[in-house]
Amino acid sequence: MSHVVTVNPRILAMEYAVRGPIPQRAAEMAQAGRSIIPCNIGNPQGLGQRPITFYRQILSLLEDPVNLERLGRAPSDAGTYPADVIEMAGEMAEGSRTGTGAYTESAGFKFVREAVSRFIDARDQLDSEGGLASDPDQVLLTDGASGGAVYVLEALISGPQDGILVPIPQYPLYSASIARCGGVLVGYHPDEESGWTLNRSILERSLGEARSKGVKVKAIVVINPGNPTGALLDVASMKQVVDVAREWDLAIIADEVYQENTYGRPWTSFARVVGNEKIPLFSLHSVSKGFYGECGHRGGYLEIRHSPPVEGTNLTLTEVLLKQASVNLCPNTMGQFLVHLMVTGPRKGTQSEELFRRERKTILQDLEAKATMIRDSFSKMDGMECFGRTGAMYLFPRLSRLPSGVGDFDYCMALLEETGMVTVNGAGFGQAEGTNHLRVAFLPPFELIEKVMPRWVEFHNRYV
Amino acid sequence: MSHVVTVNPRILAMEYAVRGPIPQRAAEMAQAGRSIIPCNIGNPQGLGQRPITFYRQILSLLEDPVNLERLGRAPSDAGTYPADVIEMAGEMAEGSRTGTGAYTESAGFKFVREAVSRFIDARDQLDSEGGLASDPDQVLLTDGASGGAVYVLEALISGPQDGILVPIPQYPLYSASIARCGGVLVGYHPDEESGWTLNRSILERSLGEARSKGVKVKAIVVINPGNPTGALLDVASMKQVVDVAREWDLAIIADEVYQENTYGRPWTSFARVVGNEKIPLFSLHSVSKGFYGECGHRGGYLEIRHSPPVEGTNLTLTEVLLKQASVNLCPNTMGQFLVHLMVTGPRKGTQSEELFRRERKTILQDLEAKATMIRDSFSKMDGMECFGRTGAMYLFPRLSRLPSGVGDFDYCMALLEETGMVTVNGAGFGQAEGTNHLRVAFLPPFELIEKVMPRWVEFHNRYV
Repeated sequence: MSHVVTVNPRILAMEYAVRGPIPQRAAEMAQAGRSIIPCNIGNPQGLGQRPITFYRQILSLLEDPVNLERLGRAPSDAGTYPADVIEMAGEMAEGSRTGTGAYTESAGFKFVREAVSRFIDARDQLDSEGGLASDPDQVLLTDGASGGAVYVLEALISGPQDGILVPIPQYPLYSASIARCGGVLVGYHPDEESGWTLNRSILERSLGEARSKGVKVKAIVVINPGNPTGALLDVASMKQVVDVAREWDLAIIADEVYQENTYGRPWTSFARVVGNEKIPLFSLHSVSKGFYGECGHRGGYLEIRHSPPVEGTNLTLTEVLLKQASVNLCPNTMGQFLVHLMVTGPRKGTQSEELFRRERKTILQDLEAKATMIRDSFSKMDGMECFGRTGAMYLFPRLSRLPSGVGDFDYCMALLEETGMVTVNGAGFGQAEGTNHLRVAFLPPFELIEKVMPRWVEFHNRYV
Repeated sequence: MSHVVTVNPRILAMEYAVRGPIPQRAAEMAQAGRSIIPCNIGNPQGLGQRPITFYRQILSLLEDPVNLERLGRAPSDAGTYPADVIEMAGEMAEGSRTGTGAYTESAGFKFVREAVSRFIDARDQLDSEGGLASDPDQVLLTDGASGGAVYVLEALISGPQDGILVPIPQYPLYSASIARCGGVLVGYHPDEESGWTLNRSILERSLGEARSKGVKVKAIVVINPGNPTGALLDVASMKQVVDVAREWDLAIIADEVYQENTYGRPWTSFARVVGNEKIPLFSLHSVSKGFYGECGHRGGYLEIRHSPPVEGTNLTLTEVLLKQASVNLCPNTMGQFLVHLMVTGPRKGTQSEELFRRERKTILQDLEAKATMIRDSFSKMDGMECFGRTGAMYLFPRLSRLPSGVGDFDYCMALLEETGMVTVNGAGFGQAEGTNHLRVAFLPPFELIEKVMPRWVEFHNRYV
């Protein structure tokens, strides 16, 4: 193979979402000693967010069973470790039976899947509504939420005419995975000016076009709160999604990894809106976002409801997903333990509880303050319009008054050169024909953003 | 989607390697209180092997940066933690810059990839042989070795006529992944009676048959030491693989995850045998096996040599693999840190070094003792023949005198019922037409195996 090799065209077709010219230029500038404000990535702990103490103390003990046993016998040696931490670490080690170093079931530790189901029932108050309790055997622990999304897409896309309905703009995981599976990405366009809401006609327009091209749409992806839009979806829109899913025979893939990032506004799960309707629902959650921000640990879960039977087999779709998971042996154990901590947390009245509440509050208030500050500055920028209720970790304003011949890429590049502000231009996510946007992740330290915003305002009004 | 759903036929075609009737029956027996000796899985810490103290003390500190800083300032508080552990944990935290909670580069931490390259150079003494030093930019950290194998297979299989040459018997990861990618598994049969060795005619027979069917073979998989055979491959066989790869234009996928499981026998890497020949080489290693046995942490690496250019692009194959990795964002950080520990270990003269050496020696000697004991018992079994030099964690004896009409599945099931010994029958891995085998993983405690072997001998000679 001294000469060229042919490679899977689907892999070549995937968009390389990671390294665009903008972050590349930012890296050069940082190299040259210029100060950079990296608002381009949703990587909280990469930008100075501190981990939750309670989580890390427990993970630390789980990695050293000898020390955990020692402290269990002699809590006085515990140093900085509260008794409730040692107790819960001990319970989790026992629940796992094999600790952090052994393969687990391919679906993940049973005691963690049970905790996930309890969390969902408490969150959605569905158990009280008859037969809707979450089933631990319909929960798969995954390496981050993306692991679960990839399983579902790869199973559902059974041929080149199978389509997946995906919001535009969208998170590149979906476009890349659909390309990789050889399916058709069918875009739908939430109504930006009414706050990125949805209605039947928006969805049916896309479904009709797809059908006219012979594309069989199998599922609809909804990201709530949105990425990149950051918008929190209203229940009316969710109900329309469920209506359309029922009538067009779609599964719903609910990407709900930002469910804790709603900044005081109520959030409703798709499990709650679907209720006992027989619509297959795949909901995704992750330890990477929220106030935990544990991206590096690659922990997440996929919960399945109304798992359909698979044509030509005696399997349900859940059994197919388990088979896919078994090829990867198991999700990493530390991610699994973190999912357990995400869905439980410290017990009421424990020493850890107060610190935990304080840390959570500080992180979420800080995120909200940064979002508010940036949005306020937008109002000082000529033709900078930001729609929707703030959620997730992003703002996605529309650039309505760019000079002719100038696109959002040029704007973001110029913004970077002048202010050191790193953003992602809207074209990177897809956007409505003829519009221009940028995505700002409000994660860098408050002071950094506060310092740069006046310069951004000045730059903007000069530029447009 | 109230009715059935069509599912990706490639996913349905994958063999569900995990739950066969034998382990299922074993689980039932365990439920019923009968004692089971699980020799069916390569999951050391699931069977009582203790983790390496040095590794876990460092991982424990990395998970709790507050505690790590505190101990860095006041080592006297370190309790059971030696100074060299605190020092190395501090260096690794610094090397990572973002610790355990942030996304890393998609290829993994640079400082770990650099350590991997230094490890390979020292192991293979290739740097001294001119231009053959390992390149950290040709190393991808992965979630276990299987993550890397899947990237390579998915990239190389560009259509339904692309084939991968795989040893029979083989580890089901390969058959499952080739099915998933829609390629052709082309089997080759190592010569069992000469110790599972290879020669040109064995390989060219399979390649010729494939070509006659219009199959383009892109790569050859070699597992050394073998799984399930457990056999250590000799250098003469490896040279023949390289000759055939050169002449038939194949990449080599070298699954070398058992390189520490050679029990005193010399082991040679494919990187060393390929040398500076322009043959694309993908070598896999993992933290799951060896004496570390950290399966649950899902750490591994893929090293690429002579990465070929990709037809119709300006990319090399390595850049394509990086693109695949970027869709998964990054491998889990704890697995990455463990890879660093696997390729470095404690420094000479440190307090941890002696304990580390003792633990490593104990684990490897125990594995060898169990393998020897089982092999010795085989000699007391009528027509039980075990070929090859013991490596990996498996023995794969041939059942040469089964009663007519009886297969290895029946034998393994009867063995389980009578002795509680859980094994995997040869058909689960594929085997030469008309032969019968079983795989024994020599991982359960010595005493357990010692107790059951006489009953196995008695059962066997009665059964055949």
